[in-house]
Amino acid sequence: MSPIKVAVVGATGETGASIVDGLLESPTTKYEVTALARPESLEKRAYQALKDRGVNVVAADLKGPQDELVSLLSGIDVVISAIFFASLADEIPLADAAKRAGVKRFIQSAFMIMIPPRGVVDFREKKEEILNYIQKLRLPYTYIDAGWWYQLTLPRIPSGRLDYALPVYNSEPRLGLDGNVPSALADIGDIGRYVARIISDPRTLNKKVYVYNEVYTRNQVYDLVEKLGGESLEREYITEQEINSRIEEARSDFEANPTNQAAFSYLSTNQLLLSWAIRGDNTPDYARYLGYLDGKELYPDFTYVKFEDYVKAALEGEVKGVYQGGK
Amino acid sequence: MSPIKVAVVGATGETGASIVDGLLESPTTKYEVTALARPESLEKRAYQALKDRGVNVVAADLKGPQDELVSLLSGIDVVISAIFFASLADEIPLADAAKRAGVKRFIQSAFMIMIPPRGVVDFREKKEEILNYIQKLRLPYTYIDAGWWYQLTLPRIPSGRLDYALPVYNSEPRLGLDGNVPSALADIGDIGRYVARIISDPRTLNKKVYVYNEVYTRNQVYDLVEKLGGESLEREYITEQEINSRIEEARSDFEANPTNQAAFSYLSTNQLLLSWAIRGDNTPDYARYLGYLDGKELYPDFTYVKFEDYVKAALEGEVKGVYQGGK
Repeated sequence: MSPIKVAVVGATGETGASIVDGLLESPTTKYEVTALARPESLEKRAYQALKDRGVNVVAADLKGPQDELVSLLSGIDVVISAIFFASLADEIPLADAAKRAGVKRFIQSAFMIMIPPRGVVDFREKKEEILNYIQKLRLPYTYIDAGWWYQLTLPRIPSGRLDYALPVYNSEPRLGLDGNVPSALADIGDIGRYVARIISDPRTLNKKVYVYNEVYTRNQVYDLVEKLGGESLEREYITEQEINSRIEEARSDFEANPTNQAAFSYLSTNQLLLSWAIRGDNTPDYARYLGYLDGKELYPDFTYVKFEDYVKAALEGEVKGVYQGGK
Repeated sequence: MSPIKVAVVGATGETGASIVDGLLESPTTKYEVTALARPESLEKRAYQALKDRGVNVVAADLKGPQDELVSLLSGIDVVISAIFFASLADEIPLADAAKRAGVKRFIQSAFMIMIPPRGVVDFREKKEEILNYIQKLRLPYTYIDAGWWYQLTLPRIPSGRLDYALPVYNSEPRLGLDGNVPSALADIGDIGRYVARIISDPRTLNKKVYVYNEVYTRNQVYDLVEKLGGESLEREYITEQEINSRIEEARSDFEANPTNQAAFSYLSTNQLLLSWAIRGDNTPDYARYLGYLDGKELYPDFTYVKFEDYVKAALEGEVKGVYQGGK
């Protein structure tokens, strides 16, 4: 069988990189990967590295002339967007072009935890709007959400042993509510491998899919890190009321100044916290209720990194962090 | 088995009346029906008639105190809203109360043809917003859409023989595009019988369901009426461009004056026409793409009124119209 041709937008971001890895290393289905890069990013080292691994890297201006985009996508079977959040609106012309080019499946940049489509996390709503646009076009699609990354799950520990693995903005060590709310987790490294399974699976066409590795409460995470790391962790909790007042504050700051990215980021962080740590939305049960297919049921043979093994490796200094800024 | 307790809002409207009939006449599952009436409507003849048929009629103020609504819904298994469009927002407190009362399934007032959730018909978007609100609550639900009613499908014929069966506002005899766009149809009388099947079916819990009887193009409808009625029909077509300019005009009238119900009605009529007669959204294929379960697959044994039989009966003067104003 000839390889499936996949175009990836945002191939050098955290999610995009995992997806490219998953596609290139797919043991069964063969994929031929094209990375669509912004013209000004073409010479970046990360794209050079992709070229060295056999990825076609081509310049694509999503805001540019539609005809050029259509011609770039001609012959492409699957388009995957892992676009940076601030550029989400560019998925609209990308979807238009994919429809005209006859792309067989469009994967928008969802890749979030399980959240109600509307009314809890503002930027989840943006993704729903794009999904609805895709549906209006009748473009074949799959909408993929995933567990909360292991890489964003570790708490800071007193000795500082885990600091190297934490994202730069990981400043808030407080647990939601009573810490007993379950939330599904996934290793970012596994997400691309799930995507490689999903996009050639006829059962997932025009469906929403939720992939995750294991479900943990925040207390279970802390218990595990204490047990494996041999250090006691302080546990501070946060109430729904506190989170809601932060959300209101951030929203009014952001509405007063829509270019205030810090306010938007604070808004989003607290809305996400409300969703997974208080409401308990990020679970397989709620995903099923919302009509998602469950990755565990689709791929019972999928081998994934266990969270316990991830924590052990992190304590050994052997994991790579995400969102680490200049590091 | 004890009967399933169902509360119906809007029981005296066209859709609500069909639903109450479907529930009361259900041959298998037994339903105990409560009609929630606005306090000021309690003495209307239509509610008296429901009482005579064994329906509990109770006053409910959806905008009133939540506790009263919760207590009204306590013990109710299924809530069905067939509320008048202008009151759709009242479904929000109704859903809140249903959640608190432990209602096992909530059927919002969808009951439209198949339309993209967003971007084509404004008032379909309102229904999506309510669905998303229900999902945020994690209230068990079923979302039901249905084919275009036979009762709104007949063309006017030169002899005037069908006039008695046409709705008062049926003034536009033009066919969409080339008249060859397929659109799914249903007898309003069958819709309630479908609903009676759906609401006690575990397969439809937390799902969207699409029910319809038969698929016809507009030309096929005209051909059939010509053949059975023995009269030639003039066929005037309407282009997408024309519909779009009507939509723009109506939208700007409506935005200039949001109390202009005529503008809203003209907007909705033309948006619906664009959807089913030009875009061809109202089909089982598109419903499947949008993730709806198909009534034909769920209930292959369902007996329904064939469109040909409906037309024959209409020509014999034997059908009852809908939306006939004071008639």
